[in-house]
Amino acid sequence: MRLVVAYEGTMYCGWQLQAAEPTVQGVLEAAFRQLEPGPRRVLGASRTDQGVHALGQVAWARTERALDPERYRDALNHFLPDDVRVRSCDLAGGEAFHPLKGVLEKTYVYRVDRGAVPDPRLRRIALHRPGPLDLAAMREGLGHLLGRHDFAALGGAGSPRRTTVRTVTEAALREVEGGIELRLSADGFLYHMVRHAVGLLLEVGQGRRGPEEVPRVLAEGPPAQGLPLAPAHGLCLLGVAYGPPFPLDSRHVG
Amino acid sequence: MRLVVAYEGTMYCGWQLQAAEPTVQGVLEAAFRQLEPGPRRVLGASRTDQGVHALGQVAWARTERALDPERYRDALNHFLPDDVRVRSCDLAGGEAFHPLKGVLEKTYVYRVDRGAVPDPRLRRIALHRPGPLDLAAMREGLGHLLGRHDFAALGGAGSPRRTTVRTVTEAALREVEGGIELRLSADGFLYHMVRHAVGLLLEVGQGRRGPEEVPRVLAEGPPAQGLPLAPAHGLCLLGVAYGPPFPLDSRHVG
Repeated sequence: MRLVVAYEGTMYCGWQLQAAEPTVQGVLEAAFRQLEPGPRRVLGASRTDQGVHALGQVAWARTERALDPERYRDALNHFLPDDVRVRSCDLAGGEAFHPLKGVLEKTYVYRVDRGAVPDPRLRRIALHRPGPLDLAAMREGLGHLLGRHDFAALGGAGSPRRTTVRTVTEAALREVEGGIELRLSADGFLYHMVRHAVGLLLEVGQGRRGPEEVPRVLAEGPPAQGLPLAPAHGLCLLGVAYGPPFPLDSRHVG
Repeated sequence: MRLVVAYEGTMYCGWQLQAAEPTVQGVLEAAFRQLEPGPRRVLGASRTDQGVHALGQVAWARTERALDPERYRDALNHFLPDDVRVRSCDLAGGEAFHPLKGVLEKTYVYRVDRGAVPDPRLRRIALHRPGPLDLAAMREGLGHLLGRHDFAALGGAGSPRRTTVRTVTEAALREVEGGIELRLSADGFLYHMVRHAVGLLLEVGQGRRGPEEVPRVLAEGPPAQGLPLAPAHGLCLLGVAYGPPFPLDSRHVG
């Protein structure tokens, strides 16, 4: 069963199962056990960090009961805490689908609350950053992320990969009520890549770096000097798009 | 000292002080007592209900220390829980300002999450209402609220007023990510008036009533038959505008 899952990550130590801490994978597996006794593994497309949110996380779990996908969704939601919601279930691929395979694009969005004081309604889902930001410079900096580059400079340590080259297909800044949203799409992201990119772009917005430093940081490669990691709670995994044989764009379901 | 206050109302039994329950007025008075020992009364412009939020509540409190308004704001925020934030302080009017006097207009916004399942990031601040809504019919219904009418049919019981005539100056529906926002401005609102209006408009959107029933409901007066009260947690007091001698539009501060 393929799932599209939304969560507010505030109360969780990230997606990935841990022995003693609450995780999103953990509460999903517990919900499955309520439906079908026995061990259950839920595989996810992205191991979101502690405090990171999702609207379109994609996951997969083996199921044994022949319920309609929609009834599965409702049954899982019945057993899930209200900060985790299954947006949709489908049978695509049966046992053949794997959430890490066939990914065309992932999209993350990072929200910044620019009010003089934080909007308390958004305190769990937006970084509060008052003061002036040069949005034109940030947009120019974002433009330098577009395309195929070695993003090793923005990757976190401790996550060995075959390659650190990724193709960024969208890098946009949008003004929203009270602040801005930065949106990044790519065929994949290195560990901490979005949060490092946002940290770098906020320095560009604050005038601490020029937008032309973005390609320079990428070219220098790791370790990027003094690159700030934007806090987790502003970040949200918006969706994952899959190609054939099991196509899905998890931004547009349910 | 005049304050503009934002809060997420989830954890509070409304604005108004209660003996045993947490209220926004209560935590503000407690924050003032941390700054200046002794009893302190904080007066508010709107007694928002349990679970209702605010971005631009206006309040007033007598102060004794000659701090800069900005330092007052920061000191109060230091002592307040993070779901209540003082957005600005000013000295306007000294002892002469009263938050209930000189009000030109109040604005409320009601958010509806239209996703098939709730967005968990918005579960505290938006009503989840999946399914089709006829937005054109809702806009037509909203149009009937505009202008000077007797709104007794939308007022709650137990709140005697000299008059139940109000002038609605804005009644708009806006599509936002994942849902809609209804916005109402008026020179004043009766108790539960916005939530009854939203309940009525959602019935119009669902096709249970035609938009032409809006003026009929108003004309019939109380008690309005079977008028649903939209849940509190979708509602937010956006701001209060004051005329001379102490002008302020609390939507635009800080």
